[in-house]
Amino acid sequence: MSNSIGEKFQITSFGSSHGKAVGAVVDGCPANLELTQEDIQKELDKRKPGTSSITTSRKEADEVQILSGIFNGKTDGTPITGVVFNKNQHSKDYSMFENTPRPSHGDFAWMMKYGNYDYNGGGRGSGRVTIGHVIGGAIAKKLLKTQNIEIISHVAQIGDIKAEINDLEIIKENVEKNPVRCGDLKAARKMEELILAKKQEGDSIGGIVETIAIGVPAGLGEPVFGRLDGDLARILMNIGAIKGVEIGLGFDMATKSGSQTNDEYQINENKATAKTNNSGGIIGGMSNGMEIVSRIAVKPTPSISKCQNSVDLEKMENKKIEIEGRHDPCICPRVSVVAESSTAIVLADHMIRSGFIHPSNLEK
Amino acid sequence: MSNSIGEKFQITSFGSSHGKAVGAVVDGCPANLELTQEDIQKELDKRKPGTSSITTSRKEADEVQILSGIFNGKTDGTPITGVVFNKNQHSKDYSMFENTPRPSHGDFAWMMKYGNYDYNGGGRGSGRVTIGHVIGGAIAKKLLKTQNIEIISHVAQIGDIKAEINDLEIIKENVEKNPVRCGDLKAARKMEELILAKKQEGDSIGGIVETIAIGVPAGLGEPVFGRLDGDLARILMNIGAIKGVEIGLGFDMATKSGSQTNDEYQINENKATAKTNNSGGIIGGMSNGMEIVSRIAVKPTPSISKCQNSVDLEKMENKKIEIEGRHDPCICPRVSVVAESSTAIVLADHMIRSGFIHPSNLEK
Amino acid sequence: MSNSIGEKFQITSFGSSHGKAVGAVVDGCPANLELTQEDIQKELDKRKPGTSSITTSRKEADEVQILSGIFNGKTDGTPITGVVFNKNQHSKDYSMFENTPRPSHGDFAWMMKYGNYDYNGGGRGSGRVTIGHVIGGAIAKKLLKTQNIEIISHVAQIGDIKAEINDLEIIKENVEKNPVRCGDLKAARKMEELILAKKQEGDSIGGIVETIAIGVPAGLGEPVFGRLDGDLARILMNIGAIKGVEIGLGFDMATKSGSQTNDEYQINENKATAKTNNSGGIIGGMSNGMEIVSRIAVKPTPSISKCQNSVDLEKMENKKIEIEGRHDPCICPRVSVVAESSTAIVLADHMIRSGFIHPSNLEK
Amino acid sequence: MSNSIGEKFQITSFGSSHGKAVGAVVDGCPANLELTQEDIQKELDKRKPGTSSITTSRKEADEVQILSGIFNGKTDGTPITGVVFNKNQHSKDYSMFENTPRPSHGDFAWMMKYGNYDYNGGGRGSGRVTIGHVIGGAIAKKLLKTQNIEIISHVAQIGDIKAEINDLEIIKENVEKNPVRCGDLKAARKMEELILAKKQEGDSIGGIVETIAIGVPAGLGEPVFGRLDGDLARILMNIGAIKGVEIGLGFDMATKSGSQTNDEYQINENKATAKTNNSGGIIGGMSNGMEIVSRIAVKPTPSISKCQNSVDLEKMENKKIEIEGRHDPCICPRVSVVAESSTAIVLADHMIRSGFIHPSNLEK
Repeated sequence: MSNSIGEKFQITSFGSSHGKAVGAVVDGCPANLELTQEDIQKELDKRKPGTSSITTSRKEADEVQILSGIFNGKTDGTPITGVVFNKNQHSKDYSMFENTPRPSHGDFAWMMKYGNYDYNGGGRGSGRVTIGHVIGGAIAKKLLKTQNIEIISHVAQIGDIKAEINDLEIIKENVEKNPVRCGDLKAARKMEELILAKKQEGDSIGGIVETIAIGVPAGLGEPVFGRLDGDLARILMNIGAIKGVEIGLGFDMATKSGSQTNDEYQINENKATAKTNNSGGIIGGMSNGMEIVSRIAVKPTPSISKCQNSVDLEKMENKKIEIEGRHDPCICPRVSVVAESSTAIVLADHMIRSGFIHPSNLEK
Repeated sequence: MSNSIGEKFQITSFGSSHGKAVGAVVDGCPANLELTQEDIQKELDKRKPGTSSITTSRKEADEVQILSGIFNGKTDGTPITGVVFNKNQHSKDYSMFENTPRPSHGDFAWMMKYGNYDYNGGGRGSGRVTIGHVIGGAIAKKLLKTQNIEIISHVAQIGDIKAEINDLEIIKENVEKNPVRCGDLKAARKMEELILAKKQEGDSIGGIVETIAIGVPAGLGEPVFGRLDGDLARILMNIGAIKGVEIGLGFDMATKSGSQTNDEYQINENKATAKTNNSGGIIGGMSNGMEIVSRIAVKPTPSISKCQNSVDLEKMENKKIEIEGRHDPCICPRVSVVAESSTAIVLADHMIRSGFIHPSNLEK
Repeated sequence: MSNSIGEKFQITSFGSSHGKAVGAVVDGCPANLELTQEDIQKELDKRKPGTSSITTSRKEADEVQILSGIFNGKTDGTPITGVVFNKNQHSKDYSMFENTPRPSHGDFAWMMKYGNYDYNGGGRGSGRVTIGHVIGGAIAKKLLKTQNIEIISHVAQIGDIKAEINDLEIIKENVEKNPVRCGDLKAARKMEELILAKKQEGDSIGGIVETIAIGVPAGLGEPVFGRLDGDLARILMNIGAIKGVEIGLGFDMATKSGSQTNDEYQINENKATAKTNNSGGIIGGMSNGMEIVSRIAVKPTPSISKCQNSVDLEKMENKKIEIEGRHDPCICPRVSVVAESSTAIVLADHMIRSGFIHPSNLEK
Repeated sequence: MSNSIGEKFQITSFGSSHGKAVGAVVDGCPANLELTQEDIQKELDKRKPGTSSITTSRKEADEVQILSGIFNGKTDGTPITGVVFNKNQHSKDYSMFENTPRPSHGDFAWMMKYGNYDYNGGGRGSGRVTIGHVIGGAIAKKLLKTQNIEIISHVAQIGDIKAEINDLEIIKENVEKNPVRCGDLKAARKMEELILAKKQEGDSIGGIVETIAIGVPAGLGEPVFGRLDGDLARILMNIGAIKGVEIGLGFDMATKSGSQTNDEYQINENKATAKTNNSGGIIGGMSNGMEIVSRIAVKPTPSISKCQNSVDLEKMENKKIEIEGRHDPCICPRVSVVAESSTAIVLADHMIRSGFIHPSNLEK
């Protein structure tokens, strides 16, 4: 199953940057969920390029069409197909990359593995394929909302600049107010400056995206190989450009003692809860009722206009390349939308798997 | 599939700390691989407790029996079952934990989810279940060896003490020479001191385990949801106590520019290779022929003897607990064996999935 | 995975009779297979209604569009999406069936399970969804052809009329020459008469479809739960209206002795082969190198215009219905196209699973 | 997944006829089901050989041990491992079959596919591996019983002798009273005579096994590829020696008209039900609330003592063989136990998949 993910709520992704279309089939969404094209479109609009100075200047309308799975304004338990027809894909000549892989892009591996590789715009390795993730994520988010679960992704760090605000309500508001999708407006301005500076230099910059899920009940996840943290790590690491995933304190755990990191319990209004959340909402691979917090490391966009060393695989000789074109100098803002979608997909799947959502009919 | 992992090379894990046995069924290993009980035993011996001052003093013989899948000293293409009967599990009374979850253990989630929870020694949440991982990993390693692929895990950091040696041959040698399984003997001594100090305090300490796979061909991994990095992240995050996974530069990517991290190509002896390996051997979700390098964050053992706050879930009142008993003050050494096994399982699976190893018969 | 099938060569089906579209995503087809829209269209045309007196008079152009997965006229290893937009679906009022299930249709079960059921034209229970099967089957057939494997389905029986010809070359030729898709032209004429007589009566008739796969090597199938016969039985029984599947002698085995049915071996031109094929090409769940022969029981079309007893599920009272409209009085001819496709999908999947076709690149 | 089956309730089978053990890991059984070794043993005893004149005279104690998954007499949501150690496997020399496949046995395909084939007693192709099915089925039956679902398999036909009784209560009683496991005692005596006559001749005989599931609610099954009939057909066809599966009227549908076979609806005590059950309880791939009725064609045991033609695959020459030893002249009685188990496994899986049984905790 190379292009499908999920056990009960399952996304099958298809399409490429410069082919006819990109999209996804979403199978396993229970019937009777109210769902409109607009629910999906508004999520897609968040990852749309061409909306600010720090993203690529490509204009992509990215209008989704739902081809199946809705009857009388509600899901009917059959596969939901969302598709976006590509429109703006003829503008550039990519033939120089036919035999010359771009450093740190997937090109080289695609060529080695499949032989017949659509190098235009990165083909299926392009960020455009995450449209399928967002289609799935939009449906997952709508489904989770019926259970009062909400997911928020935000850009927590770009280069050395870190967001300093922790209040989720403020983060949620701020994220929509700046092109970086950062929850801290002051940091956002500095991040934007840094990104523009890198763009000027023909360079790019990395960062960190944080995702928080609120309202998740205790008991999601199936040890030892269907654990919630494992499934989250997989879907997040599967996003292009991600090189690290951590849950809760993550790598900071390495330098700490158990007495510093253990989350003790207390009785609170006749309910047992953890007093702290160093575990990031997951213990023993299962949710514990606290907020689920993940952070992912986003590498700097490999497409930079600075001159780079590569090779011509046909002539088998060294070759210099300069990657022109309209590339995001920092993809963290758009990755944050995909991380939110991906997290939603995993949680929707596990909510059904664990019996919190009925597998075929929301009204049951 | 909560207790199975892998698509072609598949492990199904079973058993618990204080039940009759732990083990695994390994399905999908091609026929004609030479395999003995000893191949598995020698890997199990590496994770065995009771061998040094820094691990738990429990003595566990952990003798594996192969119940199926071998004929005339070779695999025959049928499921290989390895089982270790538990022997030393009656020594302690765990009844105090029946209704009182230990902080940052899985106890609470197990209780919430399944109701009927074997709290003895952590039940199926115990580190003992990784015996199943190691059985699968031992077979995977033997299979990978036929393709000249080797995997080495070592403890790279404990608390603030970092190993400084990068030469793989030296690391490999050193790892077997010290109880920390660190590749740097000087650092290992300091790590051991730190661990013993934490043990004295009734506390524990975290760390980082690094795993390197050598000899992996380009082209493993199936984008966009069967990616190699996603599958590695899942299986590693699925190991108990792991709170972070990174590939290559990992979280350091966040602060870097593309011009600093891109791996340029060159022709070398008529072969195209990357000049650097910031990507950790994986681009676009597929192997690129370089060493595959992952690092995982290991949290401090949650079982500490210091007094902690918890709750009695039956009486619904606060309760103090002290966890006595023989616990590892640092589980990094043993996690390193499990990480090595887990990495081997994923690579064996993808070597078959990608057509490098014949799916049913090694001699074809 | 309710709408996906296959392990390595995987079909994900979507769409319904009166929604916007029907189609399938085909994942796992290796790169470098030459494939055109025409390859798929010509298979779809075989199942197209409105082409003769014995099928429904609905005209459906059923033009397929390939949205992804082809680059430079060849597959590129990414998911292939084929879609047919529905055009002729507005002609009829189905509202009388909103609360009144048609006898022996899926309606009742769909209503019970999902609540929100698109009753127009049977929704996703319609025969139109087999367009997805045929899209997948067309690609599978093209892939199998590269390995000299050919699949032929033909109508072997309608009511009590049986085809009498066993020569595969003649069957192949004849099938395209008559609307019944029968390999025996004499029987075909009688079958056609019977079907038309049933149509006149406002009734329908059942039959048997036989499928033969030629050129399949020995060794496909993975005992004990990935057996080839089990996978064939599943995909064939999954076709709407199928109530039985048999392999080789099938149910005739029940009345026979081992000495009558055992397929003895002989050496023939230095090759070991079976002298007879009572096993239908499958022993122990694996192919043995002989022709693979299956037969399926097709029930009479449940849509008949004769008056029938049903119920109004809203008012909870008995209700008579007469199903008007353009229905096939016998669906065997169209089922034969779907059976051929379904068999091809299973064989393509197992050819990859068993290492006869490289999983990612046909040129390897 | 060659040796696992089921999506939520999953069996992983292992072991062979003459290896150390046979058994199964059952994953996905919800916690809090009361379960004892005896529950499994009593089902195993039904398929045990050596209990009558018409089965093989091999004595096999077949004592099951549960290695995991039970805590305080109840399932705890972790994998249940059941194992039977082989004891009576040293009695015979099978070396004559090392290079000489027995006609219509799996031997030939096993040799071709895997190369290293344990030919002793048929290795993993032996009927003994169905011990794993029965372990899984026993647990499934116990789980289904909590939902008032009951499954009965009986031998409906041997050669030309058919059982004539349709009353389920009588069938249930009679099945345990005769070695043929036939529900009609009069027919059973004739069947027994026929089987003994075949045994005398050194021959064997086929038959038909019918399985009825009572109490299954409407709505199990997930169209179009997770249909209940497809899943039943797969698991039943996966049983060794099965060459055909039919549901309801099955192959009789081929000769009938829609007006004869359609199951009309009626309101009965304020409930809508079908008036007849020609559909065998499944419409559109989903259960409709009626009894689920399947019939399977069992081929005559291929092991017969009559002289047969085979080949020596090493010398590549023709060779005659006589298969001596203690073989069942008719395996229908034992197949009926396996069919009952297999049906239970599929129904348990779908009861969880469709939300009728909670996926992790029976008390929820």
